[in-house]
Amino acid sequence: MPSPSRRSQFIPFSPIRAMFRLADEMDRAGQGPVIRFHVGDPDFAPPDSVIDATHQAMKAGKTHYPQSVGVHELRLALTEKVTRRNGIAAEWEQVVVAPGSTEALLAVMEVALDPGDEILLPEIYWPNYGQQTLLASASSAFYPLGAGYQPDVEGTRRRITPRTRCILVNSPSNPTGAVFPRETLRALYDLAREHDLWILSDEAYEDIVFDAEHVSLGSFERDLPEEERRVFSLFTFSKSYAMTGFRLGYIVSPTMSTATILRKTQEPLVGSTASMIQWGGLAALKDDGPIAVMRDAYRRRRDFAVGMLREAGLIDYTPQGAFYVLADVASTGLTGEEFATALLEEEKVCVAPAAGFAFALRFGAGGAPEGSVAPGAAAPDYPVNPRARHLVRIAFCVSDEDVKEGIARLVRFAARCRDRRGASAR
Amino acid sequence: MPSPSRRSQFIPFSPIRAMFRLADEMDRAGQGPVIRFHVGDPDFAPPDSVIDATHQAMKAGKTHYPQSVGVHELRLALTEKVTRRNGIAAEWEQVVVAPGSTEALLAVMEVALDPGDEILLPEIYWPNYGQQTLLASASSAFYPLGAGYQPDVEGTRRRITPRTRCILVNSPSNPTGAVFPRETLRALYDLAREHDLWILSDEAYEDIVFDAEHVSLGSFERDLPEEERRVFSLFTFSKSYAMTGFRLGYIVSPTMSTATILRKTQEPLVGSTASMIQWGGLAALKDDGPIAVMRDAYRRRRDFAVGMLREAGLIDYTPQGAFYVLADVASTGLTGEEFATALLEEEKVCVAPAAGFAFALRFGAGGAPEGSVAPGAAAPDYPVNPRARHLVRIAFCVSDEDVKEGIARLVRFAARCRDRRGASAR
Repeated sequence: MPSPSRRSQFIPFSPIRAMFRLADEMDRAGQGPVIRFHVGDPDFAPPDSVIDATHQAMKAGKTHYPQSVGVHELRLALTEKVTRRNGIAAEWEQVVVAPGSTEALLAVMEVALDPGDEILLPEIYWPNYGQQTLLASASSAFYPLGAGYQPDVEGTRRRITPRTRCILVNSPSNPTGAVFPRETLRALYDLAREHDLWILSDEAYEDIVFDAEHVSLGSFERDLPEEERRVFSLFTFSKSYAMTGFRLGYIVSPTMSTATILRKTQEPLVGSTASMIQWGGLAALKDDGPIAVMRDAYRRRRDFAVGMLREAGLIDYTPQGAFYVLADVASTGLTGEEFATALLEEEKVCVAPAAGFAFALRFGAGGAPEGSVAPGAAAPDYPVNPRARHLVRIAFCVSDEDVKEGIARLVRFAARCRDRRGASAR
Repeated sequence: MPSPSRRSQFIPFSPIRAMFRLADEMDRAGQGPVIRFHVGDPDFAPPDSVIDATHQAMKAGKTHYPQSVGVHELRLALTEKVTRRNGIAAEWEQVVVAPGSTEALLAVMEVALDPGDEILLPEIYWPNYGQQTLLASASSAFYPLGAGYQPDVEGTRRRITPRTRCILVNSPSNPTGAVFPRETLRALYDLAREHDLWILSDEAYEDIVFDAEHVSLGSFERDLPEEERRVFSLFTFSKSYAMTGFRLGYIVSPTMSTATILRKTQEPLVGSTASMIQWGGLAALKDDGPIAVMRDAYRRRRDFAVGMLREAGLIDYTPQGAFYVLADVASTGLTGEEFATALLEEEKVCVAPAAGFAFALRFGAGGAPEGSVAPGAAAPDYPVNPRARHLVRIAFCVSDEDVKEGIARLVRFAARCRDRRGASAR
């Protein structure tokens, strides 16, 4: 057998997946139910109108290939939405529909990066970004986050090299829940402009913002001539409408010419996005009511979780968006991974160790890591950014009851660990 | 603005898309209806049971993230199908669900090829293969096709270089309709084994075979130990069940270890495949009845088309599978592109010029073409394999009536061209 490509072998295994497996095993073995804080999948159902519209589309014969860039009616509605809600100056031709914003991210990387080019990612980041960099045969570099996981703009400037071509910004952030203020985003935008970088703005959580304002980076260039624009804005139906299983997202391309290139790229990447799903998405756009209802629920859960975690000395910041909080379990004497495993075992609560959000991927030229790997060898064991070693991510997109019960158990468990540690130190 | 990546600029524009646009414009301008022979989208509807199952799945809450490799029940059913129908020895872990076999092809290329590696494609091929090679930063080379568009095995052997890592086989073939006999496939398999190449077997049209047998390349290695296997088999629901708009396909991976790597690769590529769609696919698998009905219809249409085209001296072979035939219009004095444009204008019949299926893509190391391209420049104008210059592809997946009427118009038009040519030669 030939050996698989190096890049595919080098994609790190995610510790979140490992937790998934452990939680499933526990449930299957009848030792559950496990409270599932490890995955960002809303516990809500999508609006009935979405299910109906998807069904009606199938019955009406929308079962054939749609255009690779999306159903025209949906693109028009999305153009209206990003103009009105995000303040982005877009023509409908610039809006490209994708089967989820995961695929959309990869499509943009294929357009923005050549092999060997560098993309700047936040040092604590959604793992797919790093994996996608590998698929695109590009390299990742990381920009520092300061207090409250806010970008350190001057630190970011120092990470820019002649190979840097793109900076990825994710606000509200997964896994930190941080929402970046307008001034910070503006400073990052100016930095990208100064160094002529692309900006990849992942706004998957745009609608889940609590005591802050969501600012779209693309709005900063609405008055610039097309040839000076640089922001690819990425959005999804997954979180705003609880439509994770539908796989529906979209890209607003900075210019007509990048949109044309994206059109060419989507064809070999996915062909197109399922047609009936797109009609479901159109129905979702017509009724924004559920968004506010869900946002209120996430706020309630966040307030509860944050209150308990702060009292227990497990957090020193308040997430302002998304449905995540990073807890620091250093005081328990355990790493995030040890904590997650033991917490699941002792309390049936599953969290995601943040190590999986902070692999310091290191590559040589052309997307290949320094050194080489024997055929068939496993992926390299990447170093983890030390800041993330004692962090775990808690996703509060389960029911209010489960949030209360799960956080209570987690706090109780952390206290027990500290006691044990104190006892063994005596 | 930074410049888009070279690979994304180098993806060729497809002349099929240009025909699409022209046909749409004609219909919109009220000059239609156009008979659409240019696209391989079945005119059938999917079985009602598929629509019902998709709807029921949504109502039952299958609206959340499924596993990245697919819904377990579907993977089990697919394992049974490929074992029974395709003769492939597969465990369910080797079956990976994808949002269409287009995405599946790219995923396999990412696993099989490193930047700079070469994949052998048939010299007349489905354009996505070449585009995908570019996205994967690999290079394409081409193997020759002989009479009836059958692979020339000895010619193929001569195209293998030290950089060759993979050979793509597509039987039944799009765009030729050729079905490769068992001996040819066996010879290609042995060649791949001898040179330790991966095989990418695109069997999208497995169920549409007329007076021949569909042989799955993966069946040749069912008795080999896992570590000697090399065939990635790709299938889709699009053609067998008229489910093109659902975007559902799957990969059978040669081994457990390649399946594990594919699992890692699907995560950043697409996240997962829409969950309700997968339940629709499961319903499709439970009733194979519609497949035979559609196959009979395609056979009827092929017989009619082939009879007329042969009589008109426009073909010298009989396609045995898929729903395509390549007609040779050299006698009209026109290239395929000229013929397609004029036929649409004069007879409102749209065919696909085969130039789009035969770009001789040429790249340097690392996926970059020899020479360089100025920022913002359009994609290079690739040379077309001369054999394809006078060919057009006719897709007979429209109604019987449209096939009869459309082919009659095409033949009439070709005769008129020959007359004009004769007249001007006098």
